[in-house]
Amino acid sequence: MKDSKKYVEENKDRFLNELIDLLKIPSISADPAYKNDMLTTAEAVKEQLLAAGCDKAEICETPGHPVVYGEKIIDKDLPTVLVYGHYDVQPPDPLDLWNSPPFEPVIKETEIHPEGAIYARGACDDKGQMYMHVKALEFMTKNDELPCNVKFMIEGEEEVGSEHLGWFIENNKEKLANDVILISDTGMISKDTPSITTGLRGLSYVEVEVTGPNRDLHSGLYGGAVANPINILSKMIASLTDGNNHISIPGFYDKVEELGEEERKKMAEAPFSEEEYRKKLGIKDTYGEAGFTTTERASIRPTLDVNGIWGGYIGEGAKTVLPAKAFAKISMRLVPNQDWKEITRLFKEHFESIAPDAVSVEVKPHHGGQGYVTPIDNVGYQAASKAYEETFGKTPIPQRSGGSIPIVSLFEKELKSKIILMGFGLDTDAIHSPNEHFGVWNYLKGIETIPWFYKYFTEMSK
Amino acid sequence: MKDSKKYVEENKDRFLNELIDLLKIPSISADPAYKNDMLTTAEAVKEQLLAAGCDKAEICETPGHPVVYGEKIIDKDLPTVLVYGHYDVQPPDPLDLWNSPPFEPVIKETEIHPEGAIYARGACDDKGQMYMHVKALEFMTKNDELPCNVKFMIEGEEEVGSEHLGWFIENNKEKLANDVILISDTGMISKDTPSITTGLRGLSYVEVEVTGPNRDLHSGLYGGAVANPINILSKMIASLTDGNNHISIPGFYDKVEELGEEERKKMAEAPFSEEEYRKKLGIKDTYGEAGFTTTERASIRPTLDVNGIWGGYIGEGAKTVLPAKAFAKISMRLVPNQDWKEITRLFKEHFESIAPDAVSVEVKPHHGGQGYVTPIDNVGYQAASKAYEETFGKTPIPQRSGGSIPIVSLFEKELKSKIILMGFGLDTDAIHSPNEHFGVWNYLKGIETIPWFYKYFTEMSK
Repeated sequence: MKDSKKYVEENKDRFLNELIDLLKIPSISADPAYKNDMLTTAEAVKEQLLAAGCDKAEICETPGHPVVYGEKIIDKDLPTVLVYGHYDVQPPDPLDLWNSPPFEPVIKETEIHPEGAIYARGACDDKGQMYMHVKALEFMTKNDELPCNVKFMIEGEEEVGSEHLGWFIENNKEKLANDVILISDTGMISKDTPSITTGLRGLSYVEVEVTGPNRDLHSGLYGGAVANPINILSKMIASLTDGNNHISIPGFYDKVEELGEEERKKMAEAPFSEEEYRKKLGIKDTYGEAGFTTTERASIRPTLDVNGIWGGYIGEGAKTVLPAKAFAKISMRLVPNQDWKEITRLFKEHFESIAPDAVSVEVKPHHGGQGYVTPIDNVGYQAASKAYEETFGKTPIPQRSGGSIPIVSLFEKELKSKIILMGFGLDTDAIHSPNEHFGVWNYLKGIETIPWFYKYFTEMSK
Repeated sequence: MKDSKKYVEENKDRFLNELIDLLKIPSISADPAYKNDMLTTAEAVKEQLLAAGCDKAEICETPGHPVVYGEKIIDKDLPTVLVYGHYDVQPPDPLDLWNSPPFEPVIKETEIHPEGAIYARGACDDKGQMYMHVKALEFMTKNDELPCNVKFMIEGEEEVGSEHLGWFIENNKEKLANDVILISDTGMISKDTPSITTGLRGLSYVEVEVTGPNRDLHSGLYGGAVANPINILSKMIASLTDGNNHISIPGFYDKVEELGEEERKKMAEAPFSEEEYRKKLGIKDTYGEAGFTTTERASIRPTLDVNGIWGGYIGEGAKTVLPAKAFAKISMRLVPNQDWKEITRLFKEHFESIAPDAVSVEVKPHHGGQGYVTPIDNVGYQAASKAYEETFGKTPIPQRSGGSIPIVSLFEKELKSKIILMGFGLDTDAIHSPNEHFGVWNYLKGIETIPWFYKYFTEMSK
């Protein structure tokens, strides 16, 4: 194969500038105010797919934000790689913690990234990682190195639970037919230690509303006699985990896959420094389920996190109010075998059951998805492993991630192919946080590595 | 004495319009953005004091919002009544729950107020009740019925803890010298059942901040392994009260005045329907400290209420964030003998002590004040009681209120006189809430009743 490294070096500036242009569009799927920006982004992705060599690219309407589809079919008898990615991004809040505006990308050097990193919402998750695949295609088509067929499915609702992607896939099974699904929406251990994600946690995301009196009350006149929805919500949330940080929802752990000693031992061999971890996060101590290590807590164990809470007076100064309502957004990360719909139901039943008579409670299921585990003995994984060996000079480590791509298990179910998660992001990229960034080195390394996957996957599929 | 009822009837429309003009100015003391409106309001109060017959009225600077002072001294040998009130109001949030804008007063009929009620922030608390005194003075001066000296001290920081009023009083003791302090900033049992407030709860208001990691994290990648400040804050708040809703802060109850059986029995005789109470508030059940009635919980027992809570993502849709910080505003209502500074210290020490190592906690004391009890055998109380008898035809019931006027105990300490709380508001007035209002009947009844207090207080002081 021709040298992808050289092509990347020669086109580096253009590759960066094109990504920066894409990052400037605030494609926030969660907020209806950005609907037009979502369309502009989809249009830009479509144009870039055509420019990179797709024979066909189109914007496919869904009941929500559209999916961008592209393809280059060179021979129906050759294997087909389906690339999945997303062009939508997380909301950038809290804005005041960004060092530069989230939609005005800048490249800055950091300790980990002496080559610079692109700071912008979506830099890593997922515009940057998705765009690596577009540029890898460009390399292959411009240099006659595309060994198989390729299809792209770039959605606009990943950050809001891929609500309509299931519908899209069901209605386009033939169009999406493929032999392997390739995704870059995860990370790797470090620049020195490549890794391939072999497991993802599932997700159940709910919103809860606790209602007390029919109006905000004066906390002096009513305090002590009328249930305060914030106090009650705090008590209810607190009761969802016990003193060992086990989740107390009845039935929650029933289907949790318990890893054997052997597997846990193997996991513990992956390089990890608890001290380094604490230092990077600025915390005195880690915190989680008794009986498990930090790495296990963040990958093979389910969790319950409050992602947002609000109620009463949250402005400047003081207001002595006993509010009518309090709210929280709560998500649970699930492990393989836990069914997100069942867990959502168990949560709802339990949460409603623990509310005292003095309040009423509403649980609104938001979205979710199943966990996923890829076996490492399939052709896709092996091809990815060899690709990393070519460009990193090292065999990548298989690694279970704590994150979720809720739609992944549906891909396997509906499209009957394995999913390969080649992530080039780092733990420190601050995805979903202020100052999200993506290393220039990582971005270019991704573009360099991906073509090798196509080569080996095609060869090994024969 | 000439008929105050007749004068009020003749001037009713003007009395309402003048109050409405005052209510239009958004004098929100908590928010620095309204600094100019605070000054405009102070100026308007000063002008009205002069118009009502004060010989002198002035705006007295303080390190915070100014105090409006006015006086009419007719004879140094006669008693002096000092009227206290405040021209500042609570923030109007949540704005979307108001049926009409909070600073565009409207008069609407309600079931309780067939004569109409004025809807506006501050209608009852305290512009409306304060202005009754201005109009009562007008009646007395215009009709040669002022039997003694009168002074007005109308402050602009009551809703933010009267931060600088202590300083003002200390520096103006001679100017403020008086024989009784008269305040209308409380309520009465109902339009049929006049009452005089004989006790107020104290207050300690704090803001807490729980910090976990040094930035917002992805809840998938870190969830389960890193302490979530919202989960932790919920657990900490939950632990502040036990299963009987007793407050678990060590030392909290040490100085709480325990009422004897006799006193509790007497309290229980005041008309109160638990069913009516629940119905008005739209709640299935009341909720509070075990072993006490609703009336007791809301008056003679201390409380702990979260007045506001926030953290993480609180916008539309979902964001899977493990936030760096979570916050709450917490207030405790205190009963006589509990010292608010000591309670604030106990809270701070306890709250800091229960934080796990995985987070850091900051407790910022906000403001507070002591509780207060007026004996009913003093001249001031007796004069007020006779005034109500004149205009309501009934002896008012002495009643302990759950609310706080943090500065009241300081008045007694510094100015050595008793405080008489003649409140004309109702429980249903929604003070501190959306749709605050004040009955037209109550407003006019207040103006009619107050001059009788002056008459009897002067007579009984001889």
